[in-house]
Amino acid sequence: MLQLYYTPHTCALASHAALAMAGAEFELVRIDFAKNEQRSDRYLRINAKGRVPSLVTPRGILSETPAILAFVAQSYPSAKLAPIDDVFAFAQVQSFNSYLCSTVHVAHAHRMRGYRWTDDPAAIEAMKKKVPQSVSECFSLIESEMLQGPWVMGASFTICDLYLFTLAQWLEADGVKTEAIPKVIDHRQRVAAIPAVARAIAIETAP
Amino acid sequence: MLQLYYTPHTCALASHAALAMAGAEFELVRIDFAKNEQRSDRYLRINAKGRVPSLVTPRGILSETPAILAFVAQSYPSAKLAPIDDVFAFAQVQSFNSYLCSTVHVAHAHRMRGYRWTDDPAAIEAMKKKVPQSVSECFSLIESEMLQGPWVMGASFTICDLYLFTLAQWLEADGVKTEAIPKVIDHRQRVAAIPAVARAIAIETAP
Repeated sequence: MLQLYYTPHTCALASHAALAMAGAEFELVRIDFAKNEQRSDRYLRINAKGRVPSLVTPRGILSETPAILAFVAQSYPSAKLAPIDDVFAFAQVQSFNSYLCSTVHVAHAHRMRGYRWTDDPAAIEAMKKKVPQSVSECFSLIESEMLQGPWVMGASFTICDLYLFTLAQWLEADGVKTEAIPKVIDHRQRVAAIPAVARAIAIETAP
Repeated sequence: MLQLYYTPHTCALASHAALAMAGAEFELVRIDFAKNEQRSDRYLRINAKGRVPSLVTPRGILSETPAILAFVAQSYPSAKLAPIDDVFAFAQVQSFNSYLCSTVHVAHAHRMRGYRWTDDPAAIEAMKKKVPQSVSECFSLIESEMLQGPWVMGASFTICDLYLFTLAQWLEADGVKTEAIPKVIDHRQRVAAIPAVARAIAIETAP
């Protein structure tokens, strides 16, 4: 059986929701950032990067959200979570997900994980100040150029929707003016209302 | 015909080399960062993110290196640039490429593109100072945990090799002690010696 290592309020929610929507059999294993479990010897043997998510499969362990999402979509084709038989359309999915991981998530991470890129406390504070602007710019671009509607890729729901929805959880905390991105906010609500997604959120946020 | 928008000394080299190794017919279009062409109206219509690479295809435009690399591998299967018929092995390729775009390239970008994440000149300088450490940590992990040898994914050459080789171009400028990562450096030399890759480098760096 698959095992997903996750932490609440992280991008692992996208993989969790994808597994749930795919109808996969999987077990959740919670990693507690407050106890620094992601840097424990035990977890570093699962994922040497010390990050979540990690997906343990019978063939080996996968990490990185775009890879796990594509793996779930390709492993459970009947769930139709990506246009896996159309090379160009699949590349569009990958392009969107790559933008989320390389630019959008990174902009957000400068609010709480600035220590990755500097040791200077003043610089860490300076980074935090720009997060509302840099994350807003990303989501404005998503709003105006990428989110085709009703779903990211247009008529068909895909793994892009789960990933966007997940990163959109952090908008208010990042200081983004959500009234400027109504399509993103409406999309977030619609994804949250999908029963499998709602269950995934409830499981992750249960005390 | 495909068109690849690129800039020398950027990650676009990976896509360029992949197209060349795939035997694709493609045209190169150079974007001059010194003239800020990536922010021109003309280029922003091609790629609203104002970044390279962009690949213009008969179906539409793709951006983001991991997406373009997977697209090339899937579009030219006879070039065998990725294990496209093995869902798990393909996910491993995606996982590696996602790590490069979301963590390794981002660590590097704090040397010259710190303005993306702060407006404070002192903080931008503080970020530069940590680049040797943060990029070294990424490449140490690649050296010890990821680069299976002789190629990233083991016996078979893949798009991962082209992407790793591309980011490894910047090691010396990033202040990484290359003697600590001999496998990465040997790998870089072997990829550079592939005739199609050597031609791609020569074209990009020609005056």
